[in-house]
Amino acid sequence: MKSAAAIMSGFSLSTTPPRSASQSRFRLLSISLPLYRSFNSMRIHVNRSNPIFAVRNSSGSSSITAKPSSDMRRNQSGSNSGLEQDQKLAVLRELFRKPGVDIDAYIIPSQDAHQSEFIAECYMRRAYISGFTGSAGTAVVTSHKAALWTDGRYFLQAEKQLSSSWILMRAGNWGVPSTTEWLNDVLAPGGRIGIDPFLFSADAVNELKESVAKSNHELVYLYDVNLVDEVWKEARPLPPNKPIRVHELEYAGVDVSTKLSNLRSELANHGSSAIVISMLDEVAWLLNLRGNDVPHSPVMYAYLIVEIDFAKLFVDNSKVTPEVMDYLKKAGIELRAYESILSEIESLAAKGANLWLDTSSVNAAISSTYASACDKYLEQLSSKSKGKNLSGAPTVLCKSSPVSLAKAVKNHAELEGMRNSHLRDAAALAEFWSWLEEEMNKEVVLTEVEVADKLHEFRASQAGFLDTSFDTISGSGANGAIIHYRAEPDSCSIVDTQKLFLLDSGAQFLDGTTDITRTVHFGQPSDRQKECFTRVLQGHIALDQAVFPENTPGFVLDAFARSSLWKVGLDYRHGTGHGVGAALNVHEGPQSISFRFGNMTPLLKGMIVSNEPGYYEDHAFGIRIENLLFVKEIDTPNRFGGITYIGFEKLTFVPIQTKLVDLTLLSASEIDWLNDYHSQVWEKVSSLVDRPAREWLWNNTRAVAKP
Amino acid sequence: MKSAAAIMSGFSLSTTPPRSASQSRFRLLSISLPLYRSFNSMRIHVNRSNPIFAVRNSSGSSSITAKPSSDMRRNQSGSNSGLEQDQKLAVLRELFRKPGVDIDAYIIPSQDAHQSEFIAECYMRRAYISGFTGSAGTAVVTSHKAALWTDGRYFLQAEKQLSSSWILMRAGNWGVPSTTEWLNDVLAPGGRIGIDPFLFSADAVNELKESVAKSNHELVYLYDVNLVDEVWKEARPLPPNKPIRVHELEYAGVDVSTKLSNLRSELANHGSSAIVISMLDEVAWLLNLRGNDVPHSPVMYAYLIVEIDFAKLFVDNSKVTPEVMDYLKKAGIELRAYESILSEIESLAAKGANLWLDTSSVNAAISSTYASACDKYLEQLSSKSKGKNLSGAPTVLCKSSPVSLAKAVKNHAELEGMRNSHLRDAAALAEFWSWLEEEMNKEVVLTEVEVADKLHEFRASQAGFLDTSFDTISGSGANGAIIHYRAEPDSCSIVDTQKLFLLDSGAQFLDGTTDITRTVHFGQPSDRQKECFTRVLQGHIALDQAVFPENTPGFVLDAFARSSLWKVGLDYRHGTGHGVGAALNVHEGPQSISFRFGNMTPLLKGMIVSNEPGYYEDHAFGIRIENLLFVKEIDTPNRFGGITYIGFEKLTFVPIQTKLVDLTLLSASEIDWLNDYHSQVWEKVSSLVDRPAREWLWNNTRAVAKP
Repeated sequence: MKSAAAIMSGFSLSTTPPRSASQSRFRLLSISLPLYRSFNSMRIHVNRSNPIFAVRNSSGSSSITAKPSSDMRRNQSGSNSGLEQDQKLAVLRELFRKPGVDIDAYIIPSQDAHQSEFIAECYMRRAYISGFTGSAGTAVVTSHKAALWTDGRYFLQAEKQLSSSWILMRAGNWGVPSTTEWLNDVLAPGGRIGIDPFLFSADAVNELKESVAKSNHELVYLYDVNLVDEVWKEARPLPPNKPIRVHELEYAGVDVSTKLSNLRSELANHGSSAIVISMLDEVAWLLNLRGNDVPHSPVMYAYLIVEIDFAKLFVDNSKVTPEVMDYLKKAGIELRAYESILSEIESLAAKGANLWLDTSSVNAAISSTYASACDKYLEQLSSKSKGKNLSGAPTVLCKSSPVSLAKAVKNHAELEGMRNSHLRDAAALAEFWSWLEEEMNKEVVLTEVEVADKLHEFRASQAGFLDTSFDTISGSGANGAIIHYRAEPDSCSIVDTQKLFLLDSGAQFLDGTTDITRTVHFGQPSDRQKECFTRVLQGHIALDQAVFPENTPGFVLDAFARSSLWKVGLDYRHGTGHGVGAALNVHEGPQSISFRFGNMTPLLKGMIVSNEPGYYEDHAFGIRIENLLFVKEIDTPNRFGGITYIGFEKLTFVPIQTKLVDLTLLSASEIDWLNDYHSQVWEKVSSLVDRPAREWLWNNTRAVAKP
Repeated sequence: MKSAAAIMSGFSLSTTPPRSASQSRFRLLSISLPLYRSFNSMRIHVNRSNPIFAVRNSSGSSSITAKPSSDMRRNQSGSNSGLEQDQKLAVLRELFRKPGVDIDAYIIPSQDAHQSEFIAECYMRRAYISGFTGSAGTAVVTSHKAALWTDGRYFLQAEKQLSSSWILMRAGNWGVPSTTEWLNDVLAPGGRIGIDPFLFSADAVNELKESVAKSNHELVYLYDVNLVDEVWKEARPLPPNKPIRVHELEYAGVDVSTKLSNLRSELANHGSSAIVISMLDEVAWLLNLRGNDVPHSPVMYAYLIVEIDFAKLFVDNSKVTPEVMDYLKKAGIELRAYESILSEIESLAAKGANLWLDTSSVNAAISSTYASACDKYLEQLSSKSKGKNLSGAPTVLCKSSPVSLAKAVKNHAELEGMRNSHLRDAAALAEFWSWLEEEMNKEVVLTEVEVADKLHEFRASQAGFLDTSFDTISGSGANGAIIHYRAEPDSCSIVDTQKLFLLDSGAQFLDGTTDITRTVHFGQPSDRQKECFTRVLQGHIALDQAVFPENTPGFVLDAFARSSLWKVGLDYRHGTGHGVGAALNVHEGPQSISFRFGNMTPLLKGMIVSNEPGYYEDHAFGIRIENLLFVKEIDTPNRFGGITYIGFEKLTFVPIQTKLVDLTLLSASEIDWLNDYHSQVWEKVSSLVDRPAREWLWNNTRAVAKP
């Protein structure tokens, strides 16, 4: 860790001319960043590069309570007429010339201030300004042009939703420039590019800054106002203000004071005196609180600053019930207004804090404010001491948040909650599949959305159900081959009994979070479909049964899940496993199981990962088989190297359709796995469901044998 | 690629004080190095970090023609009395004060000037000065102290061989400093540390320099004299001067002019005008020449400089026969004295060459000389042009040698040679195993060395045999658990019929290079031994049968070979596969199959790799099963992603002892693999051997079945 003083002396040697205050703040951080890069690439990895696990939704819905997904798609903040879109652009461009703004371009990303996967509607600025409601996209507006970048999943949707004022940038297509390449091309050199620094991570801004510097552009941080909000005005939804609740110790397992004291030890071990926690699931986990601010994730908008003697929660007071107020007081946590985060950051610098920042998640408003406050403080300090004694100067440690790993390793109570909620989820799924098969047999016509809504009903009747954990992927036939398919009420297909049907869904319960995919056929699958399904299943089994030395990173296991597909020249273009929170986000890091080799996080005892190999045949069908697993020690007969060997235990107990299995391809031990799994499913779930579902379960857990 | 001019201007901004010429040369290179680091780590990987594949031998033998290995161990250049050792140290220390030397310490590594695995005796300076003859070690001598670093394989040997004047540094043990940590500790700050710059790669010197700079020491390059040679004097063996021969086109497959023209295209593509090739196997491969200068590898000491219009071979004239002279002339290759390499390097700079240097293999004498010559040239140029026009200035591109990859991807003729030589090797091994089993049955007492010598005899009777490709590892019982075991005539064990016997050996033939390990039991193996052997075999089969997408790096496959062992808590502490040259080095890069994840080189069609999982039980037994494989396209029924899928074909055809297999553990398809392999062995090898071996082959290739 470098002291800020050391960094300052580095500045004085620099040959570049002095810059504006906001820039100089920025440079301070960028000096520390290379140390962090490796952590950063991991983080990004989980959230961005793994198509299945990336932002599966986040567009749409202003509602964040549990409702069928068809209801949740009505009030799309983005959709509006071309005329409206053009008026918005005109108003936005007027704001470019406002005193104190004075910019030539404005970048509008999809994110909120916390790098959340699911965000509240009031933060869906990119959707509002562009009309494009897909989950991933970046809008860039200059005085004369407007362009929107999105990826292959959304090209068709964007074409439909964007007015002619917008250029659609098909990211990933050959010859399509990046946002900054485009800006460097269309702006005259030396332009001023505005951003809302709350909406970019410190790392992302660093990259941005480097890129636009090539054309001598300046990045202008507009702290005080988001220009899209200025356009949106009264029509903008209010920030969510649903009450926060305490996540009971019965489910959390460890109380707040223990968690805080562990975190403080970690800070002390790294010579830090304070940390800013900005990921919403990290705040929720650390304080054993749950919120209701965004769809699918039980979190609330808040920042948390933990110092050695204090902890301050920055949250809208209206969400804090008297019970929670009391709870926080007992835990020694002070309340502050959500908006006061930056002034607190400034006073940390004035205190000479050694601040731990996870620059992959903390936004640039926070990191730059701290850097700038450090500069100011040091100036005062060095003018007083005449530069002789700068001990006590504030410093920054750029490092992955320690809460991320602590949260990923589940304690006993969290595991119990996950186990229990998975059994209730399994009961709901047994009821659902039993119902659906019956409907299909009766030749009832059902759409993909209707089926997803019915599943929601079955889940909602289970104890402790709160919400879906992501937008259900309900895909019949060729739709199943679209990895991020989202059925829309107006345009979706009917569930065809003559085609494969892929259903990827999950729930938030009070005590746990689920995520499961099953692929079924209601009629007679083709040999091709059976072969593909069987090879996906073999990959699923191989990963499920893997045993490996402690400290093995997830990517080492990825090939196990692909090996059977590879043998016949098949593969799938997404990772094999992501982390899952305990009654928290359905996608969490830092671990993953992926063919991308950057994430060195070992799979640790107590972590939860998904096991979801697949195969997708364009315009034909999609197959995915997903269970959640938890990582546990295996009692191996040997312990070579004096270490522990690690493996998995299943959390998910829902039948896999054996009709789709080509038993001649399976080895004896793979058949044993399948029969053993189904006998566990029967044992654990049959008592939780009533007659029709029970019968369905009986029929679908019968042992199979090699023909 | 940065131009040297740009690098120069970087220097002028630097705030550090001007340095001596040799230092400034050095800095030029170090600026370009970060670009190279990733390549470098790969290279080092293959040679250093993989215990099995690292320097398996290289100590000993001055003889380089084919002789039984027992003969090859007599004339150890290192071994001598303590008194002699102390006298050598005294003479060496006197040289420290010689005018033009003036150093406080001298580092003596194991290497020759070409980073060779096997080196000629005249270059075994560390063994000579210290008396320690192990293959790996570094000696450091100061005015008052002398210390020798070696690793766990050699602690006992070093204790025996070092006199009391030497401190043994047990590298890897807790608290043992590195060479530079020790130097920083024992030398007064600002010391002068001498090295022979020919014996360190440019990368290694860079690291060294950084480390000793912490105590303000200076690294002093002694270009003109190796101080150990000065001590050694007349007793030093002459450099090898065995004749070079032409490697026939029948085996090489591609003629020199085609290889040179491919290399020149590669240079042109990277904007380079010249390259220095310093790895001996790269020189031999590129020129289709073979030498006889070191044991086990058919190479000659030489450097090669290839320019767009010229190619110059730097080699001792006495090795060049009239035939080779003629051959080189026809190929347009000029001859230069081996010692004149540095003056040619200087004139390259004066010509304004854009030089490609593989700084992981090219020694620091070459890289520093070029950097220094560039400095000199630029000074002249800028004083003439008044700094206005520096186009035409020499530059350096630090990048992995393109010859390394070209050599690794075998052409049709090379593959044919490898196939054919493997069949003759298999015939020799069938004869050998048949003989050995017979001797064991007759209860003849044979030592590990006698058995290895007999194997040498069988191989030597095969057409085209030249040499062993490394020192045979012949280990009975507990000796098999020592991964780098080397049986010595005086101390080795007898081959015990009641214990496992591990035999890892290989040959150099005119047309190919072999490397094979088999583990056998002559009596009744225990259940434990059978389980371990079977799990190693399952790993071997899993890797052998792997199919994977093109561009997959080797480390992705490593877990396949370990998976069966992991399931019961077993593992092995070495990589699973190394590259093998075609009638060249038995260990070559850039590919590898290892649990270390740094080497991103994909396994490409035509590469050759070993498949050698193992298991080692300390003080009990060792198991390894090794075949060589070549990488080939698999005709998969699908080609998902429009790419090619890749797999392996076996080169090695020698029975695997089925007595050691617990058939109940094998799956049906694993049993099929074993039976199929043995039927191929019978088909390919039985016609190459006579009666007793034929009968042995028949008995040892019979199909097995699940009990």
